[in-house]
Amino acid sequence: MAQRPLDILNESLNKPVLVKLKDGRAFRGELQGYDIHMNLVIDKTEEIAEGAVARKVGVVIVRGDNVVYISP
Amino acid sequence: MAQRPLDILNESLNKPVLVKLKDGRAFRGELQGYDIHMNLVIDKTEEIAEGAVARKVGVVIVRGDNVVYISP
Amino acid sequence: MAQRPLDILNESLNKPVLVKLKDGRAFRGELQGYDIHMNLVIDKTEEIAEGAVARKVGVVIVRGDNVVYISP
Amino acid sequence: MAQRPLDILNESLNKPVLVKLKDGRAFRGELQGYDIHMNLVIDKTEEIAEGAVARKVGVVIVRGDNVVYISP
Amino acid sequence: MAQRPLDILNESLNKPVLVKLKDGRAFRGELQGYDIHMNLVIDKTEEIAEGAVARKVGVVIVRGDNVVYISP
Amino acid sequence: MAQRPLDILNESLNKPVLVKLKDGRAFRGELQGYDIHMNLVIDKTEEIAEGAVARKVGVVIVRGDNVVYISP
Amino acid sequence: MAQRPLDILNESLNKPVLVKLKDGRAFRGELQGYDIHMNLVIDKTEEIAEGAVARKVGVVIVRGDNVVYISP
Repeated sequence: MAQRPLDILNESLNKPVLVKLKDGRAFRGELQGYDIHMNLVIDKTEEIAEGAVARKVGVVIVRGDNVVYISP
Repeated sequence: MAQRPLDILNESLNKPVLVKLKDGRAFRGELQGYDIHMNLVIDKTEEIAEGAVARKVGVVIVRGDNVVYISP
Repeated sequence: MAQRPLDILNESLNKPVLVKLKDGRAFRGELQGYDIHMNLVIDKTEEIAEGAVARKVGVVIVRGDNVVYISP
Repeated sequence: MAQRPLDILNESLNKPVLVKLKDGRAFRGELQGYDIHMNLVIDKTEEIAEGAVARKVGVVIVRGDNVVYISP
Repeated sequence: MAQRPLDILNESLNKPVLVKLKDGRAFRGELQGYDIHMNLVIDKTEEIAEGAVARKVGVVIVRGDNVVYISP
Repeated sequence: MAQRPLDILNESLNKPVLVKLKDGRAFRGELQGYDIHMNLVIDKTEEIAEGAVARKVGVVIVRGDNVVYISP
Repeated sequence: MAQRPLDILNESLNKPVLVKLKDGRAFRGELQGYDIHMNLVIDKTEEIAEGAVARKVGVVIVRGDNVVYISP
């Protein structure tokens, strides 16, 4: 059964996601919101570097054009 | 017989695909969804590096503007 | 409860935000305005470098396509 | 007699094309489809490196924004 | 009281602004005009390098996609 | 008398043009077609390197976003 | 009195302009035409390098997304 990318984002609301950005940053947190540009709201966000939590950043609004992929 | 790119993506649903990204990453997995921007949902995803499976990443939502090509 | 990215920006009006840009700059200040492109108006802006205030820049209008993320 | 770029692509359907990409890759194969973004479907695709066939990749869907030029 | 980015630009007309560009250039001058793309007209423009006036360039029309930020 | 860019392209149809691309390539040939994105069809194309003909490539369809300038 | 960027371009028709491009090129010539993308037609064009005329290129159609700024 096929599902569109935004459907999967919708199903991921309030659940943990990993977000990889074009500049090499990775965020792990709870997906709190999104829109059609893949702008994202992530809550309880941790910035990940080399597999470990580098720092906690709380809520972040990521501009969608930075996103490489989102892993629910 | 000619086929538009999105037709081929549609035929590839639930089948294995290889996806090459602009940052050099390659994903292999099962195409679970797509949209007109070539945003992709890939399931059972493996990240490939130098011809071998580097790690398993489950489901990924790839933002379409990262895609170089998709090979069904 | 899910919230769209622009809702969160709206709730952040007149409150402190941290804005990370693609060129490595970071601004800290009070969000005074925004639009659908994530163009931002920041007041009482401080440019941050290596965790410290590098200089004060007052009001800045940031063109949205420079934004990586905004942390309210 | 003038011809628009998409007319030429249409005439090239099911014929051999060479496609040069921004990342330096070159594909040679049979044009199976295209759309207005210059997303392409290429069949019997060979990746070319330094004038020789580097490897065979079968069908590829190229996202149009990677294309530098197409030579029918 | 919130203000949209273009409102602030409108209030800045005929007043001094500092404009930082993606290529590292900075212009200081009087904002003479703008449009929704943040294309700008700056009059009595000085190009700034390392905090000092590098050269005077009179009127410049800056294409908006070069802008990082504008400081009124 | 002013002329819009696409008017000049139209007048250049079936005439020699030089096309400079963002990746440093230059093509010389006969403009056979264009569209509003500045996608171009060039016939009898020669790729130019360091002022000399590097190789002949026949017909090329150039995706417009690669173009720096066209000299009729 | 405020003036929009395209108004200034319109006033500059058939007059000398300096055009700086993102790749470092600079063109000096007579503005013969433009459109809303800031695609430009420049006549009697000289390419400038290090303050001196590097070569004469006659008419050029510059694709607007290459433009940093235009100085009338």
